[in-house]
Amino acid sequence: MTSIYPPLTRLEEHRKQFPALANKAYFNFGGQGPLPQASWEAMQEGYEYIQQYGPFSGTVNDWIKSEVRQTRVAIASELGAAVKTITLTENVTVGCNIALWGMDWQAGDHILLTDCEHHGVIAAVEEIARRFQVEVSTCPILATLNQGDPTAVIAEHLQPRTRLVVLSHLLWNTGQVLPLKEIVEVCHNYTASNQPVRVLVDAAQSVGSLPLNLTELEVDFYAFTGHKWWCGAAGLGGLYIRSEVFESTSPTFIGWRSIITGEKGQPEGWQPSGKRFEVATSAYPLSVALRSAIAIHQQWGSSQVRYEQICKLSEYLWQGLSQLDMVSCLASSPPKSGLVSFVLTNGQSHEQLVHSLEKRGFLLRTLLNPNCIRACVHYFTTTSEIDQLIEAIVS
Amino acid sequence: MTSIYPPLTRLEEHRKQFPALANKAYFNFGGQGPLPQASWEAMQEGYEYIQQYGPFSGTVNDWIKSEVRQTRVAIASELGAAVKTITLTENVTVGCNIALWGMDWQAGDHILLTDCEHHGVIAAVEEIARRFQVEVSTCPILATLNQGDPTAVIAEHLQPRTRLVVLSHLLWNTGQVLPLKEIVEVCHNYTASNQPVRVLVDAAQSVGSLPLNLTELEVDFYAFTGHKWWCGAAGLGGLYIRSEVFESTSPTFIGWRSIITGEKGQPEGWQPSGKRFEVATSAYPLSVALRSAIAIHQQWGSSQVRYEQICKLSEYLWQGLSQLDMVSCLASSPPKSGLVSFVLTNGQSHEQLVHSLEKRGFLLRTLLNPNCIRACVHYFTTTSEIDQLIEAIVS
Repeated sequence: MTSIYPPLTRLEEHRKQFPALANKAYFNFGGQGPLPQASWEAMQEGYEYIQQYGPFSGTVNDWIKSEVRQTRVAIASELGAAVKTITLTENVTVGCNIALWGMDWQAGDHILLTDCEHHGVIAAVEEIARRFQVEVSTCPILATLNQGDPTAVIAEHLQPRTRLVVLSHLLWNTGQVLPLKEIVEVCHNYTASNQPVRVLVDAAQSVGSLPLNLTELEVDFYAFTGHKWWCGAAGLGGLYIRSEVFESTSPTFIGWRSIITGEKGQPEGWQPSGKRFEVATSAYPLSVALRSAIAIHQQWGSSQVRYEQICKLSEYLWQGLSQLDMVSCLASSPPKSGLVSFVLTNGQSHEQLVHSLEKRGFLLRTLLNPNCIRACVHYFTTTSEIDQLIEAIVS
Repeated sequence: MTSIYPPLTRLEEHRKQFPALANKAYFNFGGQGPLPQASWEAMQEGYEYIQQYGPFSGTVNDWIKSEVRQTRVAIASELGAAVKTITLTENVTVGCNIALWGMDWQAGDHILLTDCEHHGVIAAVEEIARRFQVEVSTCPILATLNQGDPTAVIAEHLQPRTRLVVLSHLLWNTGQVLPLKEIVEVCHNYTASNQPVRVLVDAAQSVGSLPLNLTELEVDFYAFTGHKWWCGAAGLGGLYIRSEVFESTSPTFIGWRSIITGEKGQPEGWQPSGKRFEVATSAYPLSVALRSAIAIHQQWGSSQVRYEQICKLSEYLWQGLSQLDMVSCLASSPPKSGLVSFVLTNGQSHEQLVHSLEKRGFLLRTLLNPNCIRACVHYFTTTSEIDQLIEAIVS
């Protein structure tokens, strides 16, 4: 590319596929991505197919099996993982819960959390602690945004009884990308524990924004959603479980999708793949929408190309924000992700600004820890949208 | 009513609301109900609203909250339950899992299952047994279809350490309706146990087909789905938890929907309602579809009126089948539900007949325990469809 930005006409054409972008400047991809029109139409066709040939029939059941399988293949391919490692879930948090409740906890075991985890995941960890008399502690990763070494922080906080480290690959509050491969190595090579230290990743912000090869990362559990950076429909996500820990992870919420049955329909064993952790009937057409959305991103470019574009645009946004007197960005250098968080230094309420921006067609969100406003850019955000946002913030 | 069947024109008009009924004779409501056109359109409007004003924005979040609340109210109202007792789940099996994993199991506790439970639920119970060293036994309810007293069978199988009885209100295999109020009384009044015996009901077949007042039934846990007899979209169900056992039921899979948060966003406690057992992002427009479907049924008549019509039609079907030489109905008298199960006595394979019927536009299903074919009628099934089915079976 001669220009750092793609040709405007190609970008404009690409953006037309996302109806939500037509009437607003959207900066909340970390909340939810806009659903492409083709994905929505494919989903509608799915719903209509089910009514046409079913709703419950041999034909429809075969269709569902085939669609879900193809989506699992598409997800696995984007994540650099084997198909059998992928469990489909309702959302990222269910994926985290599957991993958390699937371990054989003993009283006195220890879980290490970072101080940047989502409150839903923290609450699940706290309930695990209560039920199984497991210890939980939190390590200070937030402070490594601008200086320090997150891997060293994690390493310092491992304990002889640590069995699980829970962290986000891409922090939802500050946009910091953690060096996951390094962290996983430190955890897997921790010798003071007589049991392996596993790593559970909340990948809510990383899937669909970072280029990923989970096999190479050697992470144990990687829970994600399809409805944020992948722009699928809300209600479908997944969990990657590394082959090496698959058999020692027990299913908790269980249903007909988890098992294989005998000739009288009785449970006879677990599914040998990620299906083992799936339960029962879902909104299957969501999987058609997600696969279609992934394909649309792939048509634009590889995950590496998209990520580089995200970084260029977030640098542009970060620079624009940094020039404002009333704004201070949390990160002292451009984030290596699409999440740019900032605070207002003029005493104005964050809630009030976000509310006022929404009225004017700019969608962002506030966060409470740290108290800030978060603006997200995707690879198809335009510099003109960013310019207008900067102007809207000051006006 | 002077005729036992509703005026044909009213029925024809009502049936036009269900596109799936237009091109086939549908007899698998126990698998999935046909989605009404208005529910599908309401759901489409929901998806379009989200893209128009979001996808993630203050406006959309308020809309989701309001829609989900209204659906919870509609569900509670149909079930004769307080709104706060209702948890929304992805499906009936998730509801069963919430109850199963929410109890404070001690080694040696006992769970009593009937021999007519769904394999997904059996598998979940077996995993509970393995994890917490809980005993499981099964009581012979199948044999009470035509003679005997299911309440007495349950009573005989309670043990001093029994803490939970798991049963279906309406058996998915034979269509038998269990006397739930009586069974609950026997369990709650069982004095040989020093802990109360709770009752978890798999209500997959009863919600949307039986008139229900859960408050009066005094059942502890009642797990259901919206996509079978209520004809909602697949992927949304719920769980009723009786107020008296609410606080002693612990949430297992946990997320931001389960908790209340403090000023820094940290978890500070559980939601005081059924939300406590909900996890995170769902396909919210499904709740618009379900509420719309429930309203369409209510427009036809009360749940009592609908149930009586179901029974009349299933009697008509049962009689028609009973007259065939090649068929033997499992029930020796007309079932008090919309499920009519039968076997072929001419040696023909059940699978083969169901497959051949599907090709000819008649949708039924096979079951493995007992090995049979199941035909379901809803209140809007026509006698003409039943006549045609009888003819198709013999031809």
